[in-house]
Amino acid sequence: MTLENKADPQPLLRSAEGGVVTLRLNRPSQFNALSEALLAALQQEIDVLARDPGVRCVVLESEGRAFCAGHDLREMRSQPSLDYYRELFRKCGSVMQGLQALPVPVIAKVHGIATAAGCQLVASCDLAVAADSAKFAVSGINVGLFCATPAVALSRNVSAKRAFEMLMTARFIDAAQAADWGLINHAVPDAELDARVRALVDDILAKSPAAVRYGKRMFYKQRQMALADAYDYAGDVMARNMMEADACEGIDAFLQKRPARWTS
Amino acid sequence: MTLENKADPQPLLRSAEGGVVTLRLNRPSQFNALSEALLAALQQEIDVLARDPGVRCVVLESEGRAFCAGHDLREMRSQPSLDYYRELFRKCGSVMQGLQALPVPVIAKVHGIATAAGCQLVASCDLAVAADSAKFAVSGINVGLFCATPAVALSRNVSAKRAFEMLMTARFIDAAQAADWGLINHAVPDAELDARVRALVDDILAKSPAAVRYGKRMFYKQRQMALADAYDYAGDVMARNMMEADACEGIDAFLQKRPARWTS
Amino acid sequence: MTLENKADPQPLLRSAEGGVVTLRLNRPSQFNALSEALLAALQQEIDVLARDPGVRCVVLESEGRAFCAGHDLREMRSQPSLDYYRELFRKCGSVMQGLQALPVPVIAKVHGIATAAGCQLVASCDLAVAADSAKFAVSGINVGLFCATPAVALSRNVSAKRAFEMLMTARFIDAAQAADWGLINHAVPDAELDARVRALVDDILAKSPAAVRYGKRMFYKQRQMALADAYDYAGDVMARNMMEADACEGIDAFLQKRPARWTS
Repeated sequence: MTLENKADPQPLLRSAEGGVVTLRLNRPSQFNALSEALLAALQQEIDVLARDPGVRCVVLESEGRAFCAGHDLREMRSQPSLDYYRELFRKCGSVMQGLQALPVPVIAKVHGIATAAGCQLVASCDLAVAADSAKFAVSGINVGLFCATPAVALSRNVSAKRAFEMLMTARFIDAAQAADWGLINHAVPDAELDARVRALVDDILAKSPAAVRYGKRMFYKQRQMALADAYDYAGDVMARNMMEADACEGIDAFLQKRPARWTS
Repeated sequence: MTLENKADPQPLLRSAEGGVVTLRLNRPSQFNALSEALLAALQQEIDVLARDPGVRCVVLESEGRAFCAGHDLREMRSQPSLDYYRELFRKCGSVMQGLQALPVPVIAKVHGIATAAGCQLVASCDLAVAADSAKFAVSGINVGLFCATPAVALSRNVSAKRAFEMLMTARFIDAAQAADWGLINHAVPDAELDARVRALVDDILAKSPAAVRYGKRMFYKQRQMALADAYDYAGDVMARNMMEADACEGIDAFLQKRPARWTS
Repeated sequence: MTLENKADPQPLLRSAEGGVVTLRLNRPSQFNALSEALLAALQQEIDVLARDPGVRCVVLESEGRAFCAGHDLREMRSQPSLDYYRELFRKCGSVMQGLQALPVPVIAKVHGIATAAGCQLVASCDLAVAADSAKFAVSGINVGLFCATPAVALSRNVSAKRAFEMLMTARFIDAAQAADWGLINHAVPDAELDARVRALVDDILAKSPAAVRYGKRMFYKQRQMALADAYDYAGDVMARNMMEADACEGIDAFLQKRPARWTS
């Protein structure tokens, strides 16, 4: 990791087109380490996206050779107080949970390394596509700092013994392994990464915006419930979804064998 | 989906032989869509099976080209009220939870498509064997209706990102993929589906009926508990199981190297 | 299973070298069945290890041809009372939970069969490496005794339908299958079992002792929490870990591109 201390005037780039917002981590010389400034920029974008009725899908990608190398260790060491660290990890956890709380799907588009909080970022997105050459690790243990907050996200994606081994050994897994273990959805040849993410985005854009928003919110909420509670909640969500114009139109279009026109 | 409105005098067929009850979805012209009548028939059979001490195993299968295409969309659209939908999804959730609450194993025998609530049905069975040509999707999103109640069952079988992708994209997965992801137990050549399910049934019939009932009940109950509570509960179940005649006989037979004779 | 009733003066062997404690099940003529004496010896070692600041890693292995064939059925049958069984399963659950509660990683080194509570033992370790020829089953159902307490551990390692099938059919899976399903971390050629476990141990020994202890404790605790609670807890753990000398040294060493010297 190069460790220049030059300012990062724009640690996060944002672009938007046709309802798709792309957030691009932009600290390439720092392997896109999550500095306070970058975390703050991510939180700000998340807060805006959470209230934007026009957004349909978010893509999280990175500038340079790495996806994200985790926290900015130099910055962390320069502020050695328990309160500072508590606040830093609170902010980071807020960003990670904020991605999941967004009303629309967030896709991680991963190339290069995704380590520590960078791996947590992948785990915290709803969907993830990685280049075959991408690599994943939760490597804080190598510097004497167990990846505790990354463990929260990782262990909700990957089975117990696999997550434990990654956390205790800092072992790297490649994209194929990550796909096999469920950490990402797809590993694709590097040259096809853009196209594969675009295809996934297009899949989502073709759906009813209302249905997508009903779905994402309910998906995570029900996962934390006991089965009977989850069914009570899900049944209510689905009944309300059925009352939406898009569901009426979608079903009518299906029965009439014609394309649906969403209005939500 | 053909959409004839002819009556379904027998939307569910039941046959029984030697403790094995086979429930056969019988709306082939509707791809076995779960009409209110079919859901009611399933609930009725479940209620009877729950009290039947003679039943040892249940097989859920389907007539015609599909396993089950989910809810009956035409019927749903004809009753456009929130209360109606709430009640409909409550009934459906009751059937799905009822399968899991039955005291004996339920095996889904899957051929053709299992979509939306049809995929939920597969996820809600204890065991599932599918023909290699079978296909699975949670496709409500395609008609503007997110598969919320199917998500409850699916996300308790399949890891987070895989379930999320299936729900948001309506992507079909084949039987091999479903087996690899844990949605089903086995994908077998179409010609071997009957034999493979029969072998699984025979495996279960060879066990102590009492032990099977102890097991199924405890399996799902402990899964929703914290570890220490799960162990307290499981230890108590196992101690009571040890006091059953079948456990005494089974262990004695094992120690004496002879076949056991169950009396439960 | 041979069933000699000769005394087991040393049902569990203990050796220690360089912070690595090896516990060796030593009832080879009984396939290392978990007699009361063996469970008591395991509990005693666990209690000592829990308070030993010098231990870095525990390896659990077995003497003879089997890893562990579960409970000692002859002993169990000789004490046919509900209270006795409740107490026996409580003791066994205490050992299993004790392995997870130890402050350092426990690695199962598996050869031969691991059945019933023997399979539970594998599932209860943090990490597991098995010889390719090893086999796993939860086979109590074959003697009329559903593997209830093993189900608790198994179903927290393996997805629902797979665990259910293993429990209801007593089906054996081989090491490759166990690795594919997440029950173990690695299946290796028999001749490489020692070396592969040693490599894993060395990986752990190279880490900061403090960070490993922070990590193991938090890993299991956060898994049982809702997401927001897990993040609150994990953030606090990680902040406290950052205040340790090892984290400061580890990060400084990383930034200075030199090896770290742990002092914890």
